[in-house]
Amino acid sequence: MNRSIIKFVLGHVLMTEALLMLLPCAVALFYGEKVGIYYLAVAAVALGIGALATRKKPKNTVFYLKEGALSTALSWIVLSFFGCLPFWLSGEIPKFTDALFETVSGFTTTGASILSDVEHLSHAALFWRSFTHWIGGMGVLVFLLAIIPLSSGGSNMNLMKAESPGPSVGKLVPKIKATARILYLIYLGITVLEFILLLFGRMSIFESLCTAFGTAGTGGFGFKNDSFASFSPYIQWVVTIFMILFGVNFNCYYFLLFRQFKKAFTMEEVRTYFIIIFISVAVIFANILDMTAGIADALRQSSFQVASIITTTGFSTVDFNMWPSLSKALLVLIMFVGACAGSTGGGMKVSRFIILFKSVRKELNSYIHPKSIQKIKMDKKPVEHEVVRATNAYVVAYLIVYVISLVIIALEGRDLITTFTSVAATINNIGPGLELVGPASNFGFFSIPSKLVLMFDMLAGRLEIFPMLLIFYPGAWKDLCCRRKEKQVKAE
Amino acid sequence: MNRSIIKFVLGHVLMTEALLMLLPCAVALFYGEKVGIYYLAVAAVALGIGALATRKKPKNTVFYLKEGALSTALSWIVLSFFGCLPFWLSGEIPKFTDALFETVSGFTTTGASILSDVEHLSHAALFWRSFTHWIGGMGVLVFLLAIIPLSSGGSNMNLMKAESPGPSVGKLVPKIKATARILYLIYLGITVLEFILLLFGRMSIFESLCTAFGTAGTGGFGFKNDSFASFSPYIQWVVTIFMILFGVNFNCYYFLLFRQFKKAFTMEEVRTYFIIIFISVAVIFANILDMTAGIADALRQSSFQVASIITTTGFSTVDFNMWPSLSKALLVLIMFVGACAGSTGGGMKVSRFIILFKSVRKELNSYIHPKSIQKIKMDKKPVEHEVVRATNAYVVAYLIVYVISLVIIALEGRDLITTFTSVAATINNIGPGLELVGPASNFGFFSIPSKLVLMFDMLAGRLEIFPMLLIFYPGAWKDLCCRRKEKQVKAE
Repeated sequence: MNRSIIKFVLGHVLMTEALLMLLPCAVALFYGEKVGIYYLAVAAVALGIGALATRKKPKNTVFYLKEGALSTALSWIVLSFFGCLPFWLSGEIPKFTDALFETVSGFTTTGASILSDVEHLSHAALFWRSFTHWIGGMGVLVFLLAIIPLSSGGSNMNLMKAESPGPSVGKLVPKIKATARILYLIYLGITVLEFILLLFGRMSIFESLCTAFGTAGTGGFGFKNDSFASFSPYIQWVVTIFMILFGVNFNCYYFLLFRQFKKAFTMEEVRTYFIIIFISVAVIFANILDMTAGIADALRQSSFQVASIITTTGFSTVDFNMWPSLSKALLVLIMFVGACAGSTGGGMKVSRFIILFKSVRKELNSYIHPKSIQKIKMDKKPVEHEVVRATNAYVVAYLIVYVISLVIIALEGRDLITTFTSVAATINNIGPGLELVGPASNFGFFSIPSKLVLMFDMLAGRLEIFPMLLIFYPGAWKDLCCRRKEKQVKAE
Repeated sequence: MNRSIIKFVLGHVLMTEALLMLLPCAVALFYGEKVGIYYLAVAAVALGIGALATRKKPKNTVFYLKEGALSTALSWIVLSFFGCLPFWLSGEIPKFTDALFETVSGFTTTGASILSDVEHLSHAALFWRSFTHWIGGMGVLVFLLAIIPLSSGGSNMNLMKAESPGPSVGKLVPKIKATARILYLIYLGITVLEFILLLFGRMSIFESLCTAFGTAGTGGFGFKNDSFASFSPYIQWVVTIFMILFGVNFNCYYFLLFRQFKKAFTMEEVRTYFIIIFISVAVIFANILDMTAGIADALRQSSFQVASIITTTGFSTVDFNMWPSLSKALLVLIMFVGACAGSTGGGMKVSRFIILFKSVRKELNSYIHPKSIQKIKMDKKPVEHEVVRATNAYVVAYLIVYVISLVIIALEGRDLITTFTSVAATINNIGPGLELVGPASNFGFFSIPSKLVLMFDMLAGRLEIFPMLLIFYPGAWKDLCCRRKEKQVKAE
């Protein structure tokens, strides 16, 4: 195993985090809050450690799949660890596990909170919470790829593969570095657009910034205790539309940017994503119409909640815990569907569901024409066998993690719906679940072991299971056997 | 499509059912119950229709996969339709949908009942209910294969494949007819053994017979309103042990019968099945110890319920709805695991889970050694790629049916746990769920559309999804295109 390259990457991750932490420092300075000092101190320490770790560039800068996956998983753990220190040291979140939970929830764009009262937090803390969503949304390593000097060549793909959501990484342009930069620019562009539109709705600059970060990362940390319930319909609609936009596969924007309109508008995943949203909104709209103040209200509430759940953002304008069973069941279902691959959203991803549905249709057809050979197609191109296999493995691994987490959380002895949806809300990076973890509640009451499990689930959900499993897989750390293997691979 | 062979098979199914219905007639005669006349009348009609349909043997007796699957699905529907008529005509179950639900539940060995008071039923009705479990447990078509003259050759496999539970049909002996006979003899033998052991426990002959039928088919219809709560510990233990025995892959007994002990004791699926049972019993035992009268009581209750749920029988000695969340969550999980393939039990089957787990391990290994080619092995033999693919397709189809059913049942507006577990209890052929469909309750309150969905789920669960989906798949009924296809296949 190439340990030096992992160290090198982790060092860069720490230095990047240190630089990003200067932003909440600035916020603290602006509002005259003393807590800024903690952000500054942690940033300094992180910078120091990062500088030490990156002192010398490793000789071998080739990434194998395993190093890619392990670097990614470890990077996110390191990020969360250092990211939570200011919350804890400043005493704004007194318990270390809670501070860590909040930060993991932030970086993984989950938005599940342990805080019952967010309104008393300092501006710096609120900013840092929302900003972690923005950082986590697009991925830290993809960002690094865009800026740090690593080997050229395709092996960086192994780093990007582990962090990018979805069944397969689309190589938009031949050079991965250029791809990463363009994607980040699109991300930044849409965030800025939302920020400006929110300002038009007479939201304060600070709140607009936090909202834009939370929407862009499909995170879901609010800065008010009632999330978005008290904001104007205009603000709610802007947030709804941008949540949906950030759940679209970014390849679509890429195509639009380069005027490949036909490609952009025929993307099967994106169309399916909009169809699911449309149907869900229609059903919930009809189902809750009686409970609301009228058609406009019902439409806004159903749209906001559907957009928030399917993109796994987790903002809310209403306590959907109070909704009828049909609406709740539908919300639980789209929790699992999630957004498009290649977006900032979580869940299992629409494209995976398309592949799965098509594989069932293929199976049915094989009953009728047993001898014919069929290929699953997507966007009119055949899907590689490898992608179908990986999709199946993902689903199974996902279910295994889900079930094991469920059993451990069940030890708490809470009601089944709380148990069931707390895992669903974390592994799908949504935030709120139902009952005790509903939109009007928080995750604070869980015991420390349960919180650790839920943190693992958030990371597993964000990194698409396997990198996190790999950390606990004994085979992954067997150094010697792998070094031999590497040599073999190189010899080939 | 070879319609004449489907007609021929359905005719035989009807005649078989007519003959089997003579047994409840005999029971009615013995107890001097007038309802016997309805069983006799329905048997006569079924026999007549069956005789008409089988008047001439089709020229082409070759079964393609599609005909096999469609015949199976249609057979089970026809069986259930005629089977429910005596309940309805006699007025013992006044509504037709309810009578059909009860019969589908019987044949599919689910054991979900719409009756709130079974103790007032006639002996004939109680006998027929339990007997449908015994018929359904081993499969009607497998039974037919053993007795009716159809083509020799491997195409009968297509009939057996659709009805046999599990990822692949083990061809134990070269001749499928001989296999079917031996399996039926083993089935009969173990049933008789249980019957005798129950008689030793001073159970009446009638009750012992019904219990043995229900256990053998892993059905779960009781003849007392409290299921098995009021029976002696001895009876409860006998039932527990036989439930577990009927959940074992019958190949294991086959090996034992032919003294291939090593093969029998090294079956991976059977060992895993026992390990899951052991762990579940241990956890639930510890979890419910405080609530019970002592160690013996807790052990008996946990063993009985675990055996009942994992084998998808559905008997109960206690209302586990009252158990703590951990135990309930564990029961819900093993609802999905189910029994071994090649047993009479339902669920997703242990062997499928083994294949799924191994495919995740394979995926993890592929991170570490990307270039190595690995095969999933079971019982030390590599699992064919085709089986892995079919397993994945099954899981996905299963989830799709589950989710669609969930949405339709959610329209009832019951609580989420009732909605969730009523589908789980029917698609896995268990019987009781939790909350409103818990062991102390019944399915009577559901609306007719919901009952139809749950009936579909029971049949889909019993026939492993695809045959039932095929009935609703337009492509399956396109006669012309298929006839052309058939000719092609023959020409090859």
